[in-house]
Amino acid sequence: MSGFVSFVSSGPGDPELLTVKAVKRLEAADAVLFDDLSSGPILTHAHAEADLVGVGKRAGRPSPKQDHVSQLLVDYAQSGLKVVRLKSGDSGVFGRLEEEITALRAAGIPFEIVPGVTAASAAAAAANIPLTRRLTARRMQFITGHDVTGGLPDSLNLMALADPDATTVVYMGKRTFASLAEKLVEAGLPAQTPALVALGVSTPDQKLSCHSVGELPKVLREMETTAPVLILYGPLAETDLPTVP
Amino acid sequence: MSGFVSFVSSGPGDPELLTVKAVKRLEAADAVLFDDLSSGPILTHAHAEADLVGVGKRAGRPSPKQDHVSQLLVDYAQSGLKVVRLKSGDSGVFGRLEEEITALRAAGIPFEIVPGVTAASAAAAAANIPLTRRLTARRMQFITGHDVTGGLPDSLNLMALADPDATTVVYMGKRTFASLAEKLVEAGLPAQTPALVALGVSTPDQKLSCHSVGELPKVLREMETTAPVLILYGPLAETDLPTVP
Repeated sequence: MSGFVSFVSSGPGDPELLTVKAVKRLEAADAVLFDDLSSGPILTHAHAEADLVGVGKRAGRPSPKQDHVSQLLVDYAQSGLKVVRLKSGDSGVFGRLEEEITALRAAGIPFEIVPGVTAASAAAAAANIPLTRRLTARRMQFITGHDVTGGLPDSLNLMALADPDATTVVYMGKRTFASLAEKLVEAGLPAQTPALVALGVSTPDQKLSCHSVGELPKVLREMETTAPVLILYGPLAETDLPTVP
Repeated sequence: MSGFVSFVSSGPGDPELLTVKAVKRLEAADAVLFDDLSSGPILTHAHAEADLVGVGKRAGRPSPKQDHVSQLLVDYAQSGLKVVRLKSGDSGVFGRLEEEITALRAAGIPFEIVPGVTAASAAAAAANIPLTRRLTARRMQFITGHDVTGGLPDSLNLMALADPDATTVVYMGKRTFASLAEKLVEAGLPAQTPALVALGVSTPDQKLSCHSVGELPKVLREMETTAPVLILYGPLAETDLPTVP
């Protein structure tokens, strides 16, 4: 008897930014495997008897290895349960979804993916700006600030990333943005390009502030936070919201 | 007495891919200005007395000019109403949100933006693939297939778009993809790069099929559809779903 896994995107943090489908899957789940970023009020949608299993990297304990998470997912499903694998943001964006899908396929377990609101959309909405603009910001691109080693990824496409006519969003870029910014400016991006930094988007801890690509490394260095940091640069990265120091 | 405008993202089409916040805003609205793409079952969340006003480009009648839509929005809000401006997908992505925001600002009308699920996330979810992959698809980028003239935009960043290590999503690209594909291959993208085409993502008419960048122009030419077409190319653009002719 095989169970079923729903990869459910929990959105950026605000429980109201769950989709209706995500709420339904949580309500119906026998077990919910969650990352810490997506926990809290969102888990209250699960029913009282559901197993709630934290598998994230932010629980103040050693992070479960990715293959251990995949194995847990397979084990729960193989006991015939309806399993929700809750992933923060949109599960297809920088979420290691593929590793878990691969494990389910190898075990012959059926699954579905419930898409969600990615943090970039929520950050732009919070700043009252769009992500794209006719003529001057017709391309948008998303990257992560670090690879598996924790450093800036090798082989960045700087012709893409230093394009002044794109909106670029860097997920998890706090530690590495200084070296990225240096490469961007070398590659021709004006240092005065607007840059918005967003902490804890859509949560009670949300903070947004506007700077420039050249100023941002210093701002980030002085910023003490454990909240997820998202950086958005390009012609649209300005907001009329008050600047938060 | 000033009203209030909520720009509400309706998601890709499936009413269950509305966020909880979007449902609440629809339920509370005095007036809903909607594009045709986001209409249908989603509007049933509005209460019976709400004004429902179609302002989209797909109603089989001449499209309202953008400044007319902005003026309508201002007029409804200035009569003191709670107005929802429903926009398909994520309202910040290729949605001309900025023109409408600018009109509200000029009139001093307060507003908020409710982010949503963009079609790219829903298409990848439907195809059972992630949008990013460690090592081989660490950057993702979105463009539209046409500019205001209806043709392929000038000044494309081909170094960005022909990058074989990115996931690229082309919104509204059916008519122009043939000329884009030619430029991409000239710029070095292998013609055999996987390419997925998705019609009517997350709706009852959804169709997905997998090809290559080189084959796709012919496939698109022979495809008769009025549904929105989304093209996704890059190393991840493969699916185990049946190929739909």
